[in-house]
Amino acid sequence: MGKPSWTERVVSALRVRRFVIRATLAELLGTFLLVTFGNGSVAQVVLSREDKGTFLSINWAYGIGVVIGVYASWGVSGAHLNPAVSLTMAVLGKLRWVYLPCYVMAQMIGAFLSAVCVYIVYYDALVNFDGGTRAVLGVNGTGGIFCTYPQDYLSIGSGVLDQVVGTALLLCGVLALTDAKNNKVTAGMEPLLVGLLVFAIGTSFGFNCGYAINPARDLGPRIFTAMAGWGLEVFRAGNHWWWVPIVGPLIGGLVGGLIYTLMVALHHPEEEDNESVHGSPELQDVKVPEGGVANAAMEDLHSNTIV
Amino acid sequence: MGKPSWTERVVSALRVRRFVIRATLAELLGTFLLVTFGNGSVAQVVLSREDKGTFLSINWAYGIGVVIGVYASWGVSGAHLNPAVSLTMAVLGKLRWVYLPCYVMAQMIGAFLSAVCVYIVYYDALVNFDGGTRAVLGVNGTGGIFCTYPQDYLSIGSGVLDQVVGTALLLCGVLALTDAKNNKVTAGMEPLLVGLLVFAIGTSFGFNCGYAINPARDLGPRIFTAMAGWGLEVFRAGNHWWWVPIVGPLIGGLVGGLIYTLMVALHHPEEEDNESVHGSPELQDVKVPEGGVANAAMEDLHSNTIV
Amino acid sequence: MGKPSWTERVVSALRVRRFVIRATLAELLGTFLLVTFGNGSVAQVVLSREDKGTFLSINWAYGIGVVIGVYASWGVSGAHLNPAVSLTMAVLGKLRWVYLPCYVMAQMIGAFLSAVCVYIVYYDALVNFDGGTRAVLGVNGTGGIFCTYPQDYLSIGSGVLDQVVGTALLLCGVLALTDAKNNKVTAGMEPLLVGLLVFAIGTSFGFNCGYAINPARDLGPRIFTAMAGWGLEVFRAGNHWWWVPIVGPLIGGLVGGLIYTLMVALHHPEEEDNESVHGSPELQDVKVPEGGVANAAMEDLHSNTIV
Amino acid sequence: MGKPSWTERVVSALRVRRFVIRATLAELLGTFLLVTFGNGSVAQVVLSREDKGTFLSINWAYGIGVVIGVYASWGVSGAHLNPAVSLTMAVLGKLRWVYLPCYVMAQMIGAFLSAVCVYIVYYDALVNFDGGTRAVLGVNGTGGIFCTYPQDYLSIGSGVLDQVVGTALLLCGVLALTDAKNNKVTAGMEPLLVGLLVFAIGTSFGFNCGYAINPARDLGPRIFTAMAGWGLEVFRAGNHWWWVPIVGPLIGGLVGGLIYTLMVALHHPEEEDNESVHGSPELQDVKVPEGGVANAAMEDLHSNTIV
Repeated sequence: MGKPSWTERVVSALRVRRFVIRATLAELLGTFLLVTFGNGSVAQVVLSREDKGTFLSINWAYGIGVVIGVYASWGVSGAHLNPAVSLTMAVLGKLRWVYLPCYVMAQMIGAFLSAVCVYIVYYDALVNFDGGTRAVLGVNGTGGIFCTYPQDYLSIGSGVLDQVVGTALLLCGVLALTDAKNNKVTAGMEPLLVGLLVFAIGTSFGFNCGYAINPARDLGPRIFTAMAGWGLEVFRAGNHWWWVPIVGPLIGGLVGGLIYTLMVALHHPEEEDNESVHGSPELQDVKVPEGGVANAAMEDLHSNTIV
Repeated sequence: MGKPSWTERVVSALRVRRFVIRATLAELLGTFLLVTFGNGSVAQVVLSREDKGTFLSINWAYGIGVVIGVYASWGVSGAHLNPAVSLTMAVLGKLRWVYLPCYVMAQMIGAFLSAVCVYIVYYDALVNFDGGTRAVLGVNGTGGIFCTYPQDYLSIGSGVLDQVVGTALLLCGVLALTDAKNNKVTAGMEPLLVGLLVFAIGTSFGFNCGYAINPARDLGPRIFTAMAGWGLEVFRAGNHWWWVPIVGPLIGGLVGGLIYTLMVALHHPEEEDNESVHGSPELQDVKVPEGGVANAAMEDLHSNTIV
Repeated sequence: MGKPSWTERVVSALRVRRFVIRATLAELLGTFLLVTFGNGSVAQVVLSREDKGTFLSINWAYGIGVVIGVYASWGVSGAHLNPAVSLTMAVLGKLRWVYLPCYVMAQMIGAFLSAVCVYIVYYDALVNFDGGTRAVLGVNGTGGIFCTYPQDYLSIGSGVLDQVVGTALLLCGVLALTDAKNNKVTAGMEPLLVGLLVFAIGTSFGFNCGYAINPARDLGPRIFTAMAGWGLEVFRAGNHWWWVPIVGPLIGGLVGGLIYTLMVALHHPEEEDNESVHGSPELQDVKVPEGGVANAAMEDLHSNTIV
Repeated sequence: MGKPSWTERVVSALRVRRFVIRATLAELLGTFLLVTFGNGSVAQVVLSREDKGTFLSINWAYGIGVVIGVYASWGVSGAHLNPAVSLTMAVLGKLRWVYLPCYVMAQMIGAFLSAVCVYIVYYDALVNFDGGTRAVLGVNGTGGIFCTYPQDYLSIGSGVLDQVVGTALLLCGVLALTDAKNNKVTAGMEPLLVGLLVFAIGTSFGFNCGYAINPARDLGPRIFTAMAGWGLEVFRAGNHWWWVPIVGPLIGGLVGGLIYTLMVALHHPEEEDNESVHGSPELQDVKVPEGGVANAAMEDLHSNTIV
């Protein structure tokens, strides 16, 4: 009612009201958090020579990094944090195509900045580890802290397949966890479950090439390492591996989206089926009631399948 | 109102409206996801010679694989993902007997396909591990990636007992977690808790013979390995072990269902008891109110037992 | 309306309507589940010589065993599963004293039966491990699978203190997690958090003497081992250690209950304070609204402390 | 109505009605619980020479210690448990400045008392470990059980940076998890997620200097060790390291608060924007509805961004 205070005027001047800018900032912060926790844990394991962590602690840190990153951006941008997710959502009609470049750019920048953060926090440890001579691979190699490289035995074709499968599992799981017509995850806990999903991918499909399953998470920090002393070897290593964690996830996301849609999402009974006399009794019975907390516990769903 | 678009016509043509087909598809996908995460993690541990995981990471991956598989199918089919669960539910009157063959077949196919997926993703690693000579057991044995084999010390009788106990714990736990008259798990979190239950079984009863506790999870991938290069040794190994993870779980599920029913479920106060003047005060007081979120916290339940 | 069916008559004949019997059965089953998962995991770690688990997997199995055991009995008996909890609840007026002996007896029997279950499932592994010569302690000792023994360095006095502190943390935590006037844990998730609490006690106060913190969990299986081949050494070992995990937890539970009551529970604003004109503004503001889901998020609580 | 009973009179005499005293007691208890679980696990790992735990079990114990500590104090004081959190909340206008000294003092005393508790529970183990000669660092050093010391390679400047980054991640995460305008974490589960956040910081930024990220958690126990036999070496070690985990977190908390505010919190659409004709459609659409359970699942948020 009165005159705005000094604080209010500063806040008002800084406030962004356009959705696309707000979403871009949120995607940037969310991806930054996700990759900072994730790659921070890789740095801790590598630089302590597994004294302060193991592959399992990397799996946990990436999983919970997803949880924190998603909560930081969920209500603003939808928390994609991954170009493969954004592309799939655009194809499924859940993201306007015009926003896609903004989302992807924000994810790239967030992942790049996370590499800067991990680098400066662990700079002393890096120097202590390799004596100042940066190597991508090998016993003193530290390239794997920031982006993924394949095992020696892995062919490029199998690498692409690995990334396709890993990202298909990710998108299939994300769509299941957020499909309100399938089940009602307690509203607000979806990010925790998505984090556990990423944890599970890391424990089951992390051996071949480190489960990037996210082009921004991999390319952003890779570009940083090229600039920060590791050189262009980061693009040459693993038989020019760098493009695989970009192309594989983009394909895999679509594959996962297609599988969940064809196997489950497409067949949910529609609203009209309820009123329709043509709907079979089962169709009407099994439908989870919409609105309100899901009080149709597993029990109810089962008993509904019984005449 | 207008003419349906091209997309709408395709969707409409592909859409399945019969419950039994939708449920079959969902059980197939759910079991596929469960076993893919689970056996993917076994592959990662075995093929990396425990460098990228341990028995504990297998426990986690199987547990969270259950969580994802259940969420992917819960609202459609009830998320059994296990013939032992389906059989017990049929006996308890929670699944129509006529659906049982469809459920079991879907679970078998899903588990079989998951073996295909794990095999192709880890094909290069397999070749690198054993030089191309598939062996079921031994230092280069990889049969255990796909299905379970007993420890050397285990007799067949003890193996059956192990599977009966493990599956009885599973079903007893599942019935407790979904018994709305016992307690109100926050609606929508049941799958997470069932996943933790499977994790706990794996950490406590996984030593003797790898906690199959699921005929489809074990037989489906076993058939695949018989076809894919491991040969009929997969059925002969462990003194013709293969039938134990089928028969044991089917019995164990019923045992677990019986125990929970006799110990707890049977004795819940019925609706009529409330209006009845014959009901003891305790019976009426302790009953958890139905409908709505469980606001009868532990505290309330206790105070109700006090005069 | 018509005549009761055969099934209905059997069910009706078996159904127990008295609260105290239903609660006794539920406590028995819940404690059985808790200790079966817990001691099963100890057996797995000991008998596999840490190949299929570590101390951390025991911590997880005991934590999640609590979760499953609590859900199996929560709505019926309040899920004490521990004489130290039952005693503290009786002192705090949350359990009728007359029920206390029934609860404790049920917990003892449940823990005893769990030892039978773990023993028969792992009988072959036991024989394989020690060649049939049961020893309580030492390199082939297996007494620690069933009940707790102190480290060599531990004096009896320090052992009692350890059990008092561990159980005080348990009860203080349980009272906090179920104190509806302090915070609203999402209704239905309390058992998960109590399980994490037990996990945390095991990771922080499990070294001295294995965190029994539960007289029934320790004494029941100890009696079983005395009968099943380990002999009376189970009572003599550790300078007659056996009474410490009984007395310590009973004292510790009361200490924990006292601490939480004096530090927090006693000072919650009462209902009348709201209407009272004497109540300070803070008292009225900070009170969490009762009824319905807690929509007073952390944020709100903070802002309420600001004028 | 009648005369108050003896119990009621004692309770009434002991009851504290002033908010600031109740909050002080709750902060003291909450911080005590947090650090007792956390440092108890460090003691277990150090004194068992990693036989009963690893760095990962310390991460879990500190994470779940946060969960328990927060639930014990949340509804009373807001559960800061950390001077860096209290300072940031005061700057953000979420804690009255006049309460800040009480909160910080309570946190310091709680952390100090937790060191007493860990010391007496593990006194026998300490003597067994070092033969009675207390050393801060080295192979028999036990100073690290109670407070943090840097790795040899770490410069003071990098140490400050490490603490700033770690605490910035903490505060950024806490603000995201409790920002009701961003997303609706299922009401009541925020403490669990904050615990996972601390776990993630420990797995990713725990190598350099042990992630104190909390001045009270570090200084309180350090003062205790100075008094209890480790001497003033606890202040001299690591090139007079002791002030870094005090100054770093205080700065880092503000940095994290600033980042989340500038990137996300500042830009949430205001209430008035809804009625305003100037608000862009996106602004109105994406806003999460206030009040009631968040039924705006991820799906809805996405679909709202589509015209």
